[in-house]
Amino acid sequence: MAIHQEPLARAESLPSHLTSTEAFRWEGIDVHPYKETGSHFRSISRQILFPGAHDLPVELRYFEIDVDGHSTLERHHHAHLVVIVQGSGEVLIRDRVEAFRPHDVIHLAPMTWHQFRANQGETVGFLCVVNQERDRPQRPTEEDLALLRSVPAVAQFIRP
Amino acid sequence: MAIHQEPLARAESLPSHLTSTEAFRWEGIDVHPYKETGSHFRSISRQILFPGAHDLPVELRYFEIDVDGHSTLERHHHAHLVVIVQGSGEVLIRDRVEAFRPHDVIHLAPMTWHQFRANQGETVGFLCVVNQERDRPQRPTEEDLALLRSVPAVAQFIRP
Repeated sequence: MAIHQEPLARAESLPSHLTSTEAFRWEGIDVHPYKETGSHFRSISRQILFPGAHDLPVELRYFEIDVDGHSTLERHHHAHLVVIVQGSGEVLIRDRVEAFRPHDVIHLAPMTWHQFRANQGETVGFLCVVNQERDRPQRPTEEDLALLRSVPAVAQFIRP
Repeated sequence: MAIHQEPLARAESLPSHLTSTEAFRWEGIDVHPYKETGSHFRSISRQILFPGAHDLPVELRYFEIDVDGHSTLERHHHAHLVVIVQGSGEVLIRDRVEAFRPHDVIHLAPMTWHQFRANQGETVGFLCVVNQERDRPQRPTEEDLALLRSVPAVAQFIRP
């Protein structure tokens, strides 16, 4: 069996059934504005639905981006597994801008530049699976930005 | 960082973006009837949306249970993390029968008896995260069944 990182007490205190109280809100789960140093993101919130337990060393989070909001443009060594659950929008994956819609599954490999934008007039919501242990996201340097902007569609997408 | 079990080639061959072609079907993903020895399940299909890669040693599967269908009554040492994405139904979790609806999150700890039933007149669909490495499910013995049936709501729920 795989790794088991957290004390059993933590796993035992987890509810087995987290009920949805209204659309994309859950009983007892706080809605966190997604805060970082700086202002690299806009109108995005986060809820932690599973903190990792047993042989599942992963967190499950739900992110919601209001219309015209976006996530931070970043990359990191850890991977993301994303399932869109509401709304259409666009996502930067490395050097491509791709449209997404509900139920699309997006797998962001390590060190892939990425950014989600709710740029289609709809609130966007997605589930995101990440490892419990993960490195801090990296923001692009001026050199990284110059490279990203060398692709016109990307330059248009990541504009402030 | 966490374990990394699969060869890089496997991860590199994964699509970064799996598009939803219609409701709960994905481009290039086969729909598998959920087969086992015996007839412990009914009207359930499975799609594998992510096989595990990088620092995410987990599979993401989508299961769909047609109206009046059910999953196998089983337990195992590996945990399940489930997110309901369509339909209402009921689930057995250890010795309780609980109603669920879309977006409920159900966390099945190791060795928890469980069974999902689409018994509310609706097709049920759920995402399920499991470890890539996992033990085989156990079916209840006659002794286990007797214990389960000692709770009237459970006896009613698991009836053939």
